[in-house]
Amino acid sequence: MASSPPWVFPEHDARAAATARARQDTLTKPRGSLGALEDLAVELASIQGGPPASRPAAAVVFAADHPVTRHGVSAYPAEVTAAMMTNFVRGGAAASVLCRHLGVELRIVDVGVAHPYNPIDLGGAGARLRRDPVAGDPIGDLRVEDALSEAVYERALRAGAAEIDALPGDTRVVLLGDMGIGNTTAAAAITALLLGLAPEDAVGAGTGVEGAALARKIEVVRDALRRVQDGDPHRVVRAVGGKEIAALVGAAARAIERRMAVLVDGFIVSAAMLALVRMDARARRGMLFAHRSAERGHARILSALTARPLLDLGMRLGEATAALAALPLLDAACALHTGMATFAGASVPDRAQPGRP
Amino acid sequence: MASSPPWVFPEHDARAAATARARQDTLTKPRGSLGALEDLAVELASIQGGPPASRPAAAVVFAADHPVTRHGVSAYPAEVTAAMMTNFVRGGAAASVLCRHLGVELRIVDVGVAHPYNPIDLGGAGARLRRDPVAGDPIGDLRVEDALSEAVYERALRAGAAEIDALPGDTRVVLLGDMGIGNTTAAAAITALLLGLAPEDAVGAGTGVEGAALARKIEVVRDALRRVQDGDPHRVVRAVGGKEIAALVGAAARAIERRMAVLVDGFIVSAAMLALVRMDARARRGMLFAHRSAERGHARILSALTARPLLDLGMRLGEATAALAALPLLDAACALHTGMATFAGASVPDRAQPGRP
Repeated sequence: MASSPPWVFPEHDARAAATARARQDTLTKPRGSLGALEDLAVELASIQGGPPASRPAAAVVFAADHPVTRHGVSAYPAEVTAAMMTNFVRGGAAASVLCRHLGVELRIVDVGVAHPYNPIDLGGAGARLRRDPVAGDPIGDLRVEDALSEAVYERALRAGAAEIDALPGDTRVVLLGDMGIGNTTAAAAITALLLGLAPEDAVGAGTGVEGAALARKIEVVRDALRRVQDGDPHRVVRAVGGKEIAALVGAAARAIERRMAVLVDGFIVSAAMLALVRMDARARRGMLFAHRSAERGHARILSALTARPLLDLGMRLGEATAALAALPLLDAACALHTGMATFAGASVPDRAQPGRP
Repeated sequence: MASSPPWVFPEHDARAAATARARQDTLTKPRGSLGALEDLAVELASIQGGPPASRPAAAVVFAADHPVTRHGVSAYPAEVTAAMMTNFVRGGAAASVLCRHLGVELRIVDVGVAHPYNPIDLGGAGARLRRDPVAGDPIGDLRVEDALSEAVYERALRAGAAEIDALPGDTRVVLLGDMGIGNTTAAAAITALLLGLAPEDAVGAGTGVEGAALARKIEVVRDALRRVQDGDPHRVVRAVGGKEIAALVGAAARAIERRMAVLVDGFIVSAAMLALVRMDARARRGMLFAHRSAERGHARILSALTARPLLDLGMRLGEATAALAALPLLDAACALHTGMATFAGASVPDRAQPGRP
């Protein structure tokens, strides 16, 4: 089925990219002087297979809990994941605020939040919330056992794909995000396994651990690496990931299959994207990277994926907030691409004439 | 008078900054996890002396020509400056497109465009254009003589201040930009004189010169430095600057006096800001830097001003376009500051309780 591997990723659209580049070179500015904003327009054209568009855009945040938090790897209690679900829906979370501000629909998908919460929906003021059936499936403590069984992993992949299929069909850009206390531990373990890193090179502060808690987090990841010792990306996500990370893999794959550009948030989403690219390298072409996270492992992933993120603002919140901070750059790139005059149209002289000094 | 030095710059508002920081620390996110977006809110509060606001914002672009182009220092003919005036007003220039897209009024001020152009105003579709009387004043070739007399320099400073005073009084952020074929040569000369650099460390490609033209540009700056040999910032802007650069100094000074945040564009505006800070170091507090330009001299200015720009996108167009690309980050910072829930208000547990592992 389309929501599980093998995925059928579209080819890079060389013709749409060439058309976009040719247009960029006629606009009233020195060639290349808009830097990454020119490249973004061309990349979007290549991904989308037509004129670049940043809208409609949708933000999809997958949320889940991690039994590994029992080892004290996070600065926050696991109850925060549940409390944030209500905060998303009520419109008080950072992602809710940015989505409202930018006119982007926010969809929160509970794929495994452990504690009860009030799923009160105030008419879409903050976010649309869906609890996927996979949320009720069991999850293990990645330190001592596989986080996900094969069946649960498959269901989480499909939960991600289903959310993409539920988006309006004309969606052009999907911003992916995560919520889950403990998930920087999972992402660090994925990163270390897939890139062959020592735990201390993949583990960072997450929501803000330091000292003894940081040392514990490194030890937890070390135990997980010893236990798994496998580089197969499916096995890695199953063994040390989580439901929201598997859902992110499934969502990104489905979005890329459908020629939606995937705007990648921070460390957690990037770890999922690294796994997806290891599953099928052609997926890389559908991804745009929003931000260089302050998380230690993130730089290693970006380097492995030869990604040059749009922003470097020291953010480390997740929730798609870095992707949301970067979306206006895609908007600007598309507005410029569409709206600027050409040298010929505006009667602006292009380049010095031959014979000028 | 207020539009000329000595300026009366407001103090950093420590109380407004502390209030903003305290609010940031109550919002439903780990402290500091929004990175520069938190700092931006605090800095805006400090500059503006109250709750941070990114709007109303106005973009002001000063345009002028430079006789130094006769030495072939630019890839484009000087006629482009005039042609771009029409393009701004008609709405086809990059700055026009971004202003329309972002809901920011664009004001173009001709302070010395040499060639005739059609100042047709299509009802504000693109920009509001004003030709300041200083536009008719003489300007010299900075290679062999002072660009501006003392009187013209004073008038250009005042032209900049007057434009700020013509903005709606509730304007909170001013985006400053430039247009002028040849003005990267002037900016490089200012940078080299004020920072004691060799010409080759201050001169870059500008609109796209390379090879022999780049060598000529370096020689022109070398001649200017030999001629001037002075570090007084007023004298430097007079001797090797231009009317739009002097106007940028005057505009920024007036905006900062009025507690408007100045969002600095790229190399040209930064050279003007360097001069202003050398005139009065207190001006630095009112500036936010949008972008690290691809221009060689820009990195040196940013370092001298200990500025960490918001973006690094390889842009080198001017026209306030980099400031316009960065404005949505100020918008996002303010939206988050105002709109996010607090831990207490959203009943989200803050930090692990004592006794947790």
